[in-house]
Amino acid sequence: MSETNAELEALAQDERVTLSRDVLRFNDCDSLGHVNNVVYATLCESGRVRFLEERLRPVLGPSRLFVIVKLAIDFEAELFYPGDVVTATWASRLGTTSFTMDQAIFGAGKRAARAQGVCVTLDPATRRPAPVEGEARAALERLLRV
Amino acid sequence: MSETNAELEALAQDERVTLSRDVLRFNDCDSLGHVNNVVYATLCESGRVRFLEERLRPVLGPSRLFVIVKLAIDFEAELFYPGDVVTATWASRLGTTSFTMDQAIFGAGKRAARAQGVCVTLDPATRRPAPVEGEARAALERLLRV
Amino acid sequence: MSETNAELEALAQDERVTLSRDVLRFNDCDSLGHVNNVVYATLCESGRVRFLEERLRPVLGPSRLFVIVKLAIDFEAELFYPGDVVTATWASRLGTTSFTMDQAIFGAGKRAARAQGVCVTLDPATRRPAPVEGEARAALERLLRV
Amino acid sequence: MSETNAELEALAQDERVTLSRDVLRFNDCDSLGHVNNVVYATLCESGRVRFLEERLRPVLGPSRLFVIVKLAIDFEAELFYPGDVVTATWASRLGTTSFTMDQAIFGAGKRAARAQGVCVTLDPATRRPAPVEGEARAALERLLRV
Repeated sequence: MSETNAELEALAQDERVTLSRDVLRFNDCDSLGHVNNVVYATLCESGRVRFLEERLRPVLGPSRLFVIVKLAIDFEAELFYPGDVVTATWASRLGTTSFTMDQAIFGAGKRAARAQGVCVTLDPATRRPAPVEGEARAALERLLRV
Repeated sequence: MSETNAELEALAQDERVTLSRDVLRFNDCDSLGHVNNVVYATLCESGRVRFLEERLRPVLGPSRLFVIVKLAIDFEAELFYPGDVVTATWASRLGTTSFTMDQAIFGAGKRAARAQGVCVTLDPATRRPAPVEGEARAALERLLRV
Repeated sequence: MSETNAELEALAQDERVTLSRDVLRFNDCDSLGHVNNVVYATLCESGRVRFLEERLRPVLGPSRLFVIVKLAIDFEAELFYPGDVVTATWASRLGTTSFTMDQAIFGAGKRAARAQGVCVTLDPATRRPAPVEGEARAALERLLRV
Repeated sequence: MSETNAELEALAQDERVTLSRDVLRFNDCDSLGHVNNVVYATLCESGRVRFLEERLRPVLGPSRLFVIVKLAIDFEAELFYPGDVVTATWASRLGTTSFTMDQAIFGAGKRAARAQGVCVTLDPATRRPAPVEGEARAALERLLRV
């Protein structure tokens, strides 16, 4: 993405934010000639997975699974093939057994979408919601960007 | 879908509700072995497009385009391949230049998700938000299921 | 698919052939307004998986995995949303550790594609090619439609 | 892709070859935990479109459309998320109204697939096969890598 964007630059300098880069594909586009809205959900997922694996997995270990229970996307601009996109992901809220990730998708120098995903943390053995406690919780709190 | 669901049966009998049927595909599933969350957005889109083409296009004619600006999904149950799903879609709110569609996705006799999508109506010539007025608006109001 | 097709009818009456039905989705279409060529590969996979699970799994049991090593598709006609498709799949060749499935995809009363996929049978323990022998092989030979 | 591959390096130095880079996505993976075979067809398409737009469009102008009529993929190695892939695409045969593109997909330092796609050139006005002639044909012949 050759064009710059001040908001993306600020996010990139915040160490609590994870950036993921994706390449748009020809068949991401629908019959309207732009990237289909469903692909935005794919980009959100790529960003969430990267954030979870890079930021939460090291502090939580294999003791917790993450399940998405809520996803909300605000579509702000069209995206077109060919092109790259950058998705910024950060934790915005930490509950007892759930947490929220906020996201912003940038392409062609513009913000194309904002999104918010709520994940529940599960105990892999029982597959039931399980709290995040102790040092892991303290680590998560330092990641929060409200 | 051989299993029955009382909520789906009630929706099916409400003439303001559009049902769309989809068949799950092997590659709808992700590495967790269940239908990936992004596919729910695809099912929502199939439902919205069917509702727009069957219900709104006849009253609006080609004078208005629809653009999705907001999508929120509550994931309630896992879906598995193979299987069919039924998506119920109805208009839940009518604004000046936008309207909201509520949705429920059913599979294997259970509700798997609820969703809400906000569309803006555009004038195809200017591609700017344009109100729905007159007889078309009256027709839309009769479709509302609040 | 309301329109009839003589070839599909003949395939449907051949008990060695497995039919799978899929529903086209709005975002199966690309910017040319027709179903993207990649979706044909998805339909082939749905057909292959159904054939493998319905026909081969019962005779092979869990003792063999299937891995696709070759896929060739002849695109013969465009497909459009909305619409249903039917994919016919049958075994056309049986080798020592591999077999070939032939396929035909029908939509809107026309054949839209022919395809051929080659699968290798693996031993799940070693993940190396492993022959199909004895009663399972005899069962497979009865399925062959050359 | 940090790992090197001698074949890819050779292709990258051949000016008749077009390289396209893609980023694998979480939902490219299926329930076997690896990138689904259908995604290979998506990567092939990204490569073909880039080759067509970068190499053929400049010599053919808008006077010809390209339609894929045949695609064959040899699956050689699994791909896993996360990761990048590079697809090399070149013209391997030039017929009167069709031409063939050969492809190789590389990921994690290995060749993951080879593919071959046959395209027909159409006259946009008649949508019927139309020959490539004169200077455009001479330009295409210089791109051939048999």
